[in-house]
Amino acid sequence: MKNFKRSIDKIQTLNSEEWHLLQDIISRKKVKAKEQLVVPGQIPRYMYFVETGLLRVFHLNEGKEINTYFACDGQFISTFASFITQTPSNEYMESIEEGLVYEISHEKLNQLYLQYPKFEKFGRYYAEQSYLCVINRTVDMLNKKSKERYEDFIQNHEKKIVQRTPLKHIASYIGIEPESLSRIRKEYIIS
Amino acid sequence: MKNFKRSIDKIQTLNSEEWHLLQDIISRKKVKAKEQLVVPGQIPRYMYFVETGLLRVFHLNEGKEINTYFACDGQFISTFASFITQTPSNEYMESIEEGLVYEISHEKLNQLYLQYPKFEKFGRYYAEQSYLCVINRTVDMLNKKSKERYEDFIQNHEKKIVQRTPLKHIASYIGIEPESLSRIRKEYIIS
Repeated sequence: MKNFKRSIDKIQTLNSEEWHLLQDIISRKKVKAKEQLVVPGQIPRYMYFVETGLLRVFHLNEGKEINTYFACDGQFISTFASFITQTPSNEYMESIEEGLVYEISHEKLNQLYLQYPKFEKFGRYYAEQSYLCVINRTVDMLNKKSKERYEDFIQNHEKKIVQRTPLKHIASYIGIEPESLSRIRKEYIIS
Repeated sequence: MKNFKRSIDKIQTLNSEEWHLLQDIISRKKVKAKEQLVVPGQIPRYMYFVETGLLRVFHLNEGKEINTYFACDGQFISTFASFITQTPSNEYMESIEEGLVYEISHEKLNQLYLQYPKFEKFGRYYAEQSYLCVINRTVDMLNKKSKERYEDFIQNHEKKIVQRTPLKHIASYIGIEPESLSRIRKEYIIS
């Protein structure tokens, strides 16, 4: 629970009672590699905190996987739109590596918000970060060349995500073919 | 202040003291038609509540205005990414019609969050709605035809926005030429 505690502390200081309240709404779950935590059509009951591991969110566009989010140790992940609206997801959430996550129940989280408004700050923080992530990716896609998009990807993601995510998944996040990303990466190694 | 009160009440019930705290951080501002409230390069100090009027957020892409957000009576509006990060905006916020808005100061809003966590709920709600707005527009742009995008626009926007926003602005939001939108609209009138 080390990473979870550290990440929560960065957002807000909790006293011991508040910390227990938060622990009461999460449950520990081991995930295998390539395990699906959310599939299209399903109303996602949980958002997740990644204690250890590597996960991604993607959707299918004409049969092709389009990655839109990655998370590793110390980060939250969800199919956010369907999680907050509690409507069927059109996205997948899948682990890339095996690991350990904490499930945070939508129902219990909202009860916690109601009873202890202090926790709303986590919701606001997470929603704001999710907004920034999607807007930055969209702006990059529209205005930047593939090399710059890869540079931004490196800058905005944890080292573990950059180093351990298969190249094809990063390429689909950036919106280029794996071969092009492979060429861009080679330039980095040479230069 | 009728619309402001009604909109706040929809999110959360406030007692009279809390209501006064909220009133203390907002200030009334009359806007003319085509008045710029945020311009690129500027760190936006305020988000806005539209008591009456019609406003839009847009950016320039190769000299062309791309609208990304509209708001009318009873709605909030901001250049959200730059507002929450307090970094220079790359967007414009401009009024389409004259009206009356309430400015909500970033600094005072964050002080309010700290002192009275109950208000965090507004921040969470607004951030979640902003996320849904941007994600729905992006998904529509990628997956739907122009007619469907216009139908979604009608469904997701207040009547006033649909009826009073100049056609060219709606066309740029949907990502089509004004002439194409004009044709789509004619089909609606005929059918």
